[in-house]
Amino acid sequence: MAERSKTKTRILKTALELFNNEGEAQISAVDVASVMEISPGNLYYHYKGKPEIIGALFDDFEEEIRLILTGPINEPLSLKDNWVYLYIIFEEIYDFRFFYRNMSEILLRMPELRARFARILALKEQTAFSLISDLEDGGFLKFAEGEKGALAGRIAQHFTFWLQYHDLRHGSTPPKILIDQGVFTTLIQITPYWTRGDGYADLLSEFLDTEA
Amino acid sequence: MAERSKTKTRILKTALELFNNEGEAQISAVDVASVMEISPGNLYYHYKGKPEIIGALFDDFEEEIRLILTGPINEPLSLKDNWVYLYIIFEEIYDFRFFYRNMSEILLRMPELRARFARILALKEQTAFSLISDLEDGGFLKFAEGEKGALAGRIAQHFTFWLQYHDLRHGSTPPKILIDQGVFTTLIQITPYWTRGDGYADLLSEFLDTEA
Repeated sequence: MAERSKTKTRILKTALELFNNEGEAQISAVDVASVMEISPGNLYYHYKGKPEIIGALFDDFEEEIRLILTGPINEPLSLKDNWVYLYIIFEEIYDFRFFYRNMSEILLRMPELRARFARILALKEQTAFSLISDLEDGGFLKFAEGEKGALAGRIAQHFTFWLQYHDLRHGSTPPKILIDQGVFTTLIQITPYWTRGDGYADLLSEFLDTEA
Repeated sequence: MAERSKTKTRILKTALELFNNEGEAQISAVDVASVMEISPGNLYYHYKGKPEIIGALFDDFEEEIRLILTGPINEPLSLKDNWVYLYIIFEEIYDFRFFYRNMSEILLRMPELRARFARILALKEQTAFSLISDLEDGGFLKFAEGEKGALAGRIAQHFTFWLQYHDLRHGSTPPKILIDQGVFTTLIQITPYWTRGDGYADLLSEFLDTEA
């Protein structure tokens, strides 16, 4: 994470919380200052405006998610760790949910983030491909032609839009259920390729109880 | 479709084309008037502003997509028609792409559309469920517990975000390829549940050559 003054860190923490909980569109830089009980001038001394705050938050998110996503590309996970790993991804995305909930509009307003976010999507796809390739190599998954690449793309797409779709379709949902649902709807995309036993329950028991 | 004066119809047609091709955020009601070579006052006589234009376009889209989506709920498709049917859905969504490309922002600005769009998503899920249930009843698909409902939800989510994901991940793409990709990435979600032969090529040959 970038080295920052204590005030800068507090500004970003407060802004992230407000953006996530109230909706980024509803919150101005002045609101952030007001919640922190500092003057707008003091805030502007540290960050020139809301775009600069969003840019700094994106820097942090990018650093964290890249670290998470490159993990299993560099070193295969144990079978059991796949399950926990999906939780880590969904929790990271949830922590940055204001962006995921309104990405098309934010990227229109801040086009400089577009290529960086596209690279994160490519990395998501690469990570998903790597995870399912390891499971295939271990004999746990079996694919017909074209299915593996399509599944990797679909998982990356699911990571990216699960929040927006869930919001639109089911309205506000407690975070635990939301994240559980994200993980469940990822795993159940993998079950039909699972070579052992039948379906989700079996895959789950392998992920939860077996050391690879 | 709603009964409308010739000018109203022309305004909507022009606005839809501009929104779709230039991006809705870039286009004002005055731009629409200017392309039509009418005065802004003349346009405002018919539609009070951009939100009213978007509202009327949404009315049309809602009417068309509901008609399309309820088709296979009321009467099962022949096996062969599934393929064509997916093209019809993706083409309809593509025709209304300005909305799909920026839905989170438009729904924030026009919250009155939110519940209506949520109902379209529920209908998408119901239609997908109905399509795969018919294929299951015909012995073409076989699901383990929980997989059918999850697949229906995933297909509805895919209809909804395929455009945004494709844009973000791959940039601008000719419409034919975009729509082909949408249909392909839907079908390849179904192949692992396919009971005959192996994979996509087989499913495709059944969809293209067999009368159910």
